[in-house]
Amino acid sequence: MLAGLLVSTATLSLSSGVAVAQDDPLPSWSEGMPKQSIVDFVSAVTREGTPDFVPPPERIATFDNDGTLWCEQPMYVQLAFALDRVKALAGKHPEWKQKQPFKAVLDNDISALAKSGEKGLVELVMATHTGMSTAEFEKIASDWIATARHPKFKRPYTELVYQPMLELLAYLRANAFKTFIVSGGGIEFMRPWSQKIYGIPPEQVVGSSIKTKFEVDNGHPTLIRLPAIDLVDDGPGKPVGINSHIGRRPIAAFGNSDGDFQMLQWATGQNGRRFGLIVHHTAAEREYAYDRKSPFGRLDKALDAAAANKWVVISMKDDWKRVFAFQ
Amino acid sequence: MLAGLLVSTATLSLSSGVAVAQDDPLPSWSEGMPKQSIVDFVSAVTREGTPDFVPPPERIATFDNDGTLWCEQPMYVQLAFALDRVKALAGKHPEWKQKQPFKAVLDNDISALAKSGEKGLVELVMATHTGMSTAEFEKIASDWIATARHPKFKRPYTELVYQPMLELLAYLRANAFKTFIVSGGGIEFMRPWSQKIYGIPPEQVVGSSIKTKFEVDNGHPTLIRLPAIDLVDDGPGKPVGINSHIGRRPIAAFGNSDGDFQMLQWATGQNGRRFGLIVHHTAAEREYAYDRKSPFGRLDKALDAAAANKWVVISMKDDWKRVFAFQ
Repeated sequence: MLAGLLVSTATLSLSSGVAVAQDDPLPSWSEGMPKQSIVDFVSAVTREGTPDFVPPPERIATFDNDGTLWCEQPMYVQLAFALDRVKALAGKHPEWKQKQPFKAVLDNDISALAKSGEKGLVELVMATHTGMSTAEFEKIASDWIATARHPKFKRPYTELVYQPMLELLAYLRANAFKTFIVSGGGIEFMRPWSQKIYGIPPEQVVGSSIKTKFEVDNGHPTLIRLPAIDLVDDGPGKPVGINSHIGRRPIAAFGNSDGDFQMLQWATGQNGRRFGLIVHHTAAEREYAYDRKSPFGRLDKALDAAAANKWVVISMKDDWKRVFAFQ
Repeated sequence: MLAGLLVSTATLSLSSGVAVAQDDPLPSWSEGMPKQSIVDFVSAVTREGTPDFVPPPERIATFDNDGTLWCEQPMYVQLAFALDRVKALAGKHPEWKQKQPFKAVLDNDISALAKSGEKGLVELVMATHTGMSTAEFEKIASDWIATARHPKFKRPYTELVYQPMLELLAYLRANAFKTFIVSGGGIEFMRPWSQKIYGIPPEQVVGSSIKTKFEVDNGHPTLIRLPAIDLVDDGPGKPVGINSHIGRRPIAAFGNSDGDFQMLQWATGQNGRRFGLIVHHTAAEREYAYDRKSPFGRLDKALDAAAANKWVVISMKDDWKRVFAFQ
């Protein structure tokens, strides 16, 4: 959709003689090294007959989701979903009033919730994301995302996507890249809206997953979501998920946290022209500023390793003219 | 590639006035119900403004591989690969001379091998398909397929693909279908040649898989293949694999054995115009004839269920003018 728009704009400006600036495929990116490095990379791998050329089928680009394509503060969107689901289901689970981590959620006690740690989060996910069919879960997730609002911006989460990254996705696709999401978030939580908000179809979404079981229920084939983890698509799990779902190594990877470290290594640690980019959250006024100490999207080890690996670190404050489309 | 060829042919015949028969997208299919049912289905779901219309992104078609796209007799190609690997690796494993199921392989004792059952097969796969990096395995599998020959036809296995099915894949893609392989075979065994022989890229191949682990080996990011099963993409595992990799339900599915039963149910057991097809191996002279009692590609339960589910059963002998391109 956006790619089509870009192509139309380019055609229009060529025939009407509008200045070259109108053709800029990345209008929300400030001029500077990061923007130039993206354009240089894309130009290099698409120039036939040169050593850097990469044939279109191998132009695989992988994007983290939380904090790279959309806002992950004050907590991951999917965690906000899980907390809302606990509240919605509490009537059927009177025991939750006395049982952690559910009690913490019902009491809005974030510090008690934090104390329950990863084990507590897994318990919340299992209680809210499993035990129904895949079709039922898709409806629950779709209904929620259509009505939920971000606490700071008071807008649907699907509007809190980064405009410069939408332009980047479209720019890559216009240059015959195939764009994939590779997220620590749940694969079936993202798929219902990935096409609409990112132009990325469900089959190009890789994420954490739980096991499912096929059943025929009264003549209706069904997949039931089981309370068992299949893949944690984060950190060293990202190259595993990429290999399983894509079967090729990306030539470009985009992330924002230590959870993307191994995906960046996997994409860039091979021969040929490759590209790695880290979104550094520095836009306190327009979004949030955080890195080494954030409970969500911590960027520490990957930030330190960026220079040695030639990963481009972009500052949201300086390198993006705007963060969201509505700004 | 084939789709491009079809388009060119159509254009050529339109401008040169060649007879309509030249435009037949399925020239290796005999006229009759099965061929007509395929054309009717494709016409129906691509006709805009009708109740049967399916938008292009939802035109997902899934194909079993062994026995549906290529020959699976006298044994699965991947089993032939595993047996050759046991022989190639035997020098490093002197203990195999006394240990089943390896002894049976080294002695060419097929009945002893059969006695080791599924447990024995898993042992063979683990011993021959794991313990190396994904890149190393890809090279081993690619080198083998380039040199191995089918025992009856004395040709590379990649020539033993069914010409009518290649035409069907191209015909569907020319009508904006996205074609996927969904096979009980190993995902990383098929991916190195799926693009070349079927026009299906690695990211559209779903198959059985083993677990992998990310490591950085002397500065080189690597995925190591572990001796642990991840997914058995067969029978009830096929809808699971489809959901995990594609995230949409197919509107058409093509198989040839009981291992495809649940995939056919998953594709056709939903509202809207859907299509299921079973390849029945009846061409004893040109290929093999087998069904209910075959150790490989047994077709029994799915054959009995075909009529009630409105799955089209094609007879290779009667409905295909030729089986292989070289015939």
